Amino acid sequence: MTANLCHAVAMSTRDFDRLFAPRSLVLVGATDRAGSVGAVTLANLRNGGFAGALYLVNPKHASVAGMPCFPDVGHVPQTPDLAVIATPPDRVAGVVRQLGDKGTRAAVILTAGFGELGERGRAMQREISEAAAAQSIRVIGPNCVGIMVPDVGLNASFAHLAPSNGDVAFVSQSGALITAVLDWAKPRGIGFSKVISLGDMADVDFGDTLEYLRTDAATQAILLYVEGFSDGGKFMSAARAVSANKPVIVLKVGRNAEAARAAHSHTGALAGSDVVYDAAFRRAGMLRVDTMPEMFDAVETLGRTGAQSGDRLTILTNGGGPGVMATDALVSRGGVPAQLGAQTLEKLNAILPPTWSHGNPVDMIGDAGPKEYRETLETLLGDPGSDAILVLNCPTALSDPSEAAKAVIETIRTSRTSDGVRNVFTSWLGEYSAAPARALFDAAQIPTYDTPDDAVDGFMCRVRYAHSQAVLAEIPVPDPAADGTVDAVIARALAAGRRWLDSDGVDAVLSVYQIPTPPSRTVADAAGAAAAARELGGPVALKLRSPDITHKSEVGGVALDLHGEEEVRNAALAMLQHVKTARPDARLEGFFVQSMVRRPDAIELIAGLSVDPVFGPVVLFGRGGTAVEIIADTSLELAPINAALARLQMQRTRVWRLLQGYRGQPPAAIDAVAAVLVRLSDLIVEHPQIAELDINPLLADAQGVLALDARIAVTSNLEANARARSVRSRDAGDAVEVRP
Amino acid sequence: MTANLCHAVAMSTRDFDRLFAPRSLVLVGATDRAGSVGAVTLANLRNGGFAGALYLVNPKHASVAGMPCFPDVGHVPQTPDLAVIATPPDRVAGVVRQLGDKGTRAAVILTAGFGELGERGRAMQREISEAAAAQSIRVIGPNCVGIMVPDVGLNASFAHLAPSNGDVAFVSQSGALITAVLDWAKPRGIGFSKVISLGDMADVDFGDTLEYLRTDAATQAILLYVEGFSDGGKFMSAARAVSANKPVIVLKVGRNAEAARAAHSHTGALAGSDVVYDAAFRRAGMLRVDTMPEMFDAVETLGRTGAQSGDRLTILTNGGGPGVMATDALVSRGGVPAQLGAQTLEKLNAILPPTWSHGNPVDMIGDAGPKEYRETLETLLGDPGSDAILVLNCPTALSDPSEAAKAVIETIRTSRTSDGVRNVFTSWLGEYSAAPARALFDAAQIPTYDTPDDAVDGFMCRVRYAHSQAVLAEIPVPDPAADGTVDAVIARALAAGRRWLDSDGVDAVLSVYQIPTPPSRTVADAAGAAAAARELGGPVALKLRSPDITHKSEVGGVALDLHGEEEVRNAALAMLQHVKTARPDARLEGFFVQSMVRRPDAIELIAGLSVDPVFGPVVLFGRGGTAVEIIADTSLELAPINAALARLQMQRTRVWRLLQGYRGQPPAAIDAVAAVLVRLSDLIVEHPQIAELDINPLLADAQGVLALDARIAVTSNLEANARARSVRSRDAGDAVEVRP
Repeated sequence: MTANLCHAVAMSTRDFDRLFAPRSLVLVGATDRAGSVGAVTLANLRNGGFAGALYLVNPKHASVAGMPCFPDVGHVPQTPDLAVIATPPDRVAGVVRQLGDKGTRAAVILTAGFGELGERGRAMQREISEAAAAQSIRVIGPNCVGIMVPDVGLNASFAHLAPSNGDVAFVSQSGALITAVLDWAKPRGIGFSKVISLGDMADVDFGDTLEYLRTDAATQAILLYVEGFSDGGKFMSAARAVSANKPVIVLKVGRNAEAARAAHSHTGALAGSDVVYDAAFRRAGMLRVDTMPEMFDAVETLGRTGAQSGDRLTILTNGGGPGVMATDALVSRGGVPAQLGAQTLEKLNAILPPTWSHGNPVDMIGDAGPKEYRETLETLLGDPGSDAILVLNCPTALSDPSEAAKAVIETIRTSRTSDGVRNVFTSWLGEYSAAPARALFDAAQIPTYDTPDDAVDGFMCRVRYAHSQAVLAEIPVPDPAADGTVDAVIARALAAGRRWLDSDGVDAVLSVYQIPTPPSRTVADAAGAAAAARELGGPVALKLRSPDITHKSEVGGVALDLHGEEEVRNAALAMLQHVKTARPDARLEGFFVQSMVRRPDAIELIAGLSVDPVFGPVVLFGRGGTAVEIIADTSLELAPINAALARLQMQRTRVWRLLQGYRGQPPAAIDAVAAVLVRLSDLIVEHPQIAELDINPLLADAQGVLALDARIAVTSNLEANARARSVRSRDAGDAVEVRP
Repeated sequence: MTANLCHAVAMSTRDFDRLFAPRSLVLVGATDRAGSVGAVTLANLRNGGFAGALYLVNPKHASVAGMPCFPDVGHVPQTPDLAVIATPPDRVAGVVRQLGDKGTRAAVILTAGFGELGERGRAMQREISEAAAAQSIRVIGPNCVGIMVPDVGLNASFAHLAPSNGDVAFVSQSGALITAVLDWAKPRGIGFSKVISLGDMADVDFGDTLEYLRTDAATQAILLYVEGFSDGGKFMSAARAVSANKPVIVLKVGRNAEAARAAHSHTGALAGSDVVYDAAFRRAGMLRVDTMPEMFDAVETLGRTGAQSGDRLTILTNGGGPGVMATDALVSRGGVPAQLGAQTLEKLNAILPPTWSHGNPVDMIGDAGPKEYRETLETLLGDPGSDAILVLNCPTALSDPSEAAKAVIETIRTSRTSDGVRNVFTSWLGEYSAAPARALFDAAQIPTYDTPDDAVDGFMCRVRYAHSQAVLAEIPVPDPAADGTVDAVIARALAAGRRWLDSDGVDAVLSVYQIPTPPSRTVADAAGAAAAARELGGPVALKLRSPDITHKSEVGGVALDLHGEEEVRNAALAMLQHVKTARPDARLEGFFVQSMVRRPDAIELIAGLSVDPVFGPVVLFGRGGTAVEIIADTSLELAPINAALARLQMQRTRVWRLLQGYRGQPPAAIDAVAAVLVRLSDLIVEHPQIAELDINPLLADAQGVLALDARIAVTSNLEANARARSVRSRDAGDAVEVRP
């Protein structure tokens, strides 16, 4: 790690203590006007229980709410640690400059109406950023609800409710989500260590905030609400570091195109593709959820369970139906019903009546009481074939649900003293009779859920978190090819003003990175094509060469399975004629003649590279062919990757099953496929001028892989350098994380 | 409709009034023993408020719980309308016979331990069924929790809680789900018209119960909990009739293989494949859900909204984030964000501040109050481009959530008097401040949900219900080919003891049903194959003929793209040699030589038929190729179908999009594909001896369709006749439904 990077990380949380543990405050824009942001914020600041000094500023008033009010910041008798700003938009920049002169180093800007007010608003916002930077003031907002630190009595917000104290930090890009979460949490008694509304992120962003919360002793878990951001490298660096220490649960909206557009109009953030965020959160060791209740369920689940290595669940129940419901939920979410061991079956036969289900789900039958719950759970906890156990209960008139709960709690307590620790999840069905049992589980810190589906979600939350943490643990070291060929190919294309490499260039790049291609020749005309066909022998494919045509097959620029010189010559001439009509503008540079590959049982894959505006280069893997988007079976990983990450990436697709061997086919050479992905990752890390790459189809069978068709686009050095910086900054996160 | 069918339907609900509105009761197996089924049931019967006479029977006691107790049914001084039986298993059949002698015509058998107790239990259960049939007694159970009719004070169950009166009927195959639902419903104040635990269904089953509830005036909606059943025809007949009158919501467990196995061990029912149930519920106009809470949400949603024609939703919000969350949920569940009309945009520009989102979601910005809600909703209700509106609210300190709710309620109330009726769904985020607003919506019977996700589920529930009701409305009339060829082909195969038709037979069947195939020849040996290749001209495919090899490609029995006589002869000889080693047992009958088809841009589909053990013949459509199971892009429909149903079936796959034209390809001949599905349906309806059929691939492009490969299996007349009966019984449902 370089000194420079150390400096960058330290910089990001400079003066954060003044933001979150200030000794004195000033509210600029204090007012009595009922229902205004200034009045609500003043009430919150006074009611929060803040012990330090609070000053008010408003040039229009000498006193507000019975407190003295100063005409400007300069007149405040002390240098406040933190300023809270609620003035009209056009006055904010001036206030920031005054605060700088006064020596205040932290501000929360509640004022809204910048990013959404067109060019004038954007100009105001730039002025604020410049003023804050010039005066070294840390700024949260503008366009935010504020910040809350219940532990120190700080409520610098215009939220309608104050949170109680707790050990969870909530960081949100949307103010509306802050108030909704507080409103939802209050009757549930859920408390917070910090509530931070980031707003438009003129200065403080997710990266800075995560870095600060990483070492915040009051925070045990972090919840993020994300709509989108622009600096992916900084985010990843901080995120990977914090995720190694405490759970981070992220709710990101904008999963689809329509939603991304809406997010754009809301925050003005440049949103990347959502699947890239997905890959980034996973790579950062985070757990992604889809709804607000899931966010809190996940916190509770992770807080009440230990690390879990696998995805095999045993279900214990006193009613068959709910057992099947839980199994349905498990399988549909990608979990695995555990197989009971022979020893376990034998023990259960001795404990349970002969009518028990003799398998998983373990249905003890309706009249099972505390004794059956205790003995069965004890037995299941000892089965090494299971990674966790879900205990269900249906109310009956024949046995008390609370007594069953007590037996389960006692069993878990005593089994925890032995070494066979396994996570136990519970769901007592119903509500009227289930409520007392749920209270018992809550008191014992055992995860409990209203429905079997929710309980399975809890189990899968542990499974997904383990996957994400495994990805986090991988630190790929790129292995550059160290060969001047690719640089030369790229330089030639850029010099010629071409974005897409020609066939020779593509072939050269793939060859340097050891990605196999069929034998081929580049020729100038139909006669050359015929000669090449003779030379190659066997059937050939003929492809038009044109710097202006990317999707050759769409304009009849590809002919397959041509036999003999005559057929090749005729096809070449026909192709020229057709393309001259269809695309008269296109420059034609001859043909590319390639041996036809006869591997009818090979699987068609796609492997690719592209560059996300937020997170930089990404590697694509999936099922190939002409309808990649419709088959929709791809997975993304941020570059750089190693073989382990490539394997995990492949496992997230459906085609993975096909690669294992199918209907009598032997398994494909999976290591060879993984190697292609890793080499592509190396390629783009070493050559940031690579903008896009598609190998489609990449054939895979037992013999190995073969790239049948590939396209590579390059970009200028200027863009490329910026991208390289982003990747290096992402690596820094790994460096931070491995420090002792 | 024939008299015979009328009789069958009437029979199914005979004496149901004695079950659900008895004037007198007898409990057989009454006891004082605390915690026993007999004691709990007696308490429930006495506490239910039943106005008629209640008699107790138990040979061991002269009185129970202070009431006189008779030694047997014969001694009861009156003929009770309904008997409730809680004796040990081996005494139940005897009690049923006594009841018959007494004249009682209805019984609820609570006793468990038949189906799950091996051969002895099954024998006892058969004895009960026979006794009940002989004595014309309607039986619910055995192995059930009982039945409850709060309206008449009947609680003939050993459930731990009594339901309150309401207008929803709950019918469950699992007793555990009965108690769980009652426990869940009690604190929520949800009442029931009937609660019916069907248990092992020795007599009364889902079909009978649905037929009874169809005309039950006390029941406005029906909830079913299903694990599996055997008589699909009877179920469909009753289900289609009732769904035309009132909503039926079904929770069926066992979505996957593991779960189906568990259900099997639980109820002993012969479970068909779950996707067939899915098709059947949809065809029956029902709404399928996955969890218990969804079941009640669906009842509420359907009860509080009107019919809805489309899937386009407009989202109205005062906070951007929740709007995006709702859009995410909408798109991920298959709904469509509505496009605002130009007129609507213009009106909203006049109503809302300039910072509003200018699109859908309509984000009015955080300080929107009742006036903005009213005016905006009014405008949106007038936009014909939207099928429904979702109104969201985030709590703020600047505006009261309850005031916004009142404005929305008032707007809906006044707009309902005009003719532009659109469904409005609401979700007030949070809990503390949202609770009073939710109470207002509940009082106004406006659907309201805790989260935007739940609200979108509510909207989609209306969308799916509309789809299901559209399917219900289609009544296909099969159009038989009326040609003796197929009968002859089938007879020849059966006479030869062959399950799979040979190539000639397949070709003949497809030809009668006008399904196009490439030119082909059937030959006896390698020399014949070479001659056929010369005759056909161009490249050919060569396929081995063997009655013992179904998947020819797996044993090297298929060679493609052979050019010229020499190549065909060599391939044929090589094939013979290989198969003789790989499958020495297989009988070889020569070869099938087929012109190679050159339609590289055609889409590979699969079309097929098979016979479900519960629901009879089904038609399959989907993406074809060698990995159909892994691509997992198929949809099922019960035969018979018509062109409209075939189209709806195709639209449920991903490949549907591909058929619309993709990457410069013209749209495929969709009508031709639909015609193939309809003709296959006609084939199996006219020839119930067809057991299985696969056309894979079925090529489809702009020119039309072409069946490249097909396999057809047939079965004996005995099985086939049973199947034909099942299809006819299903048709009866349609007949019932179209009566005025």
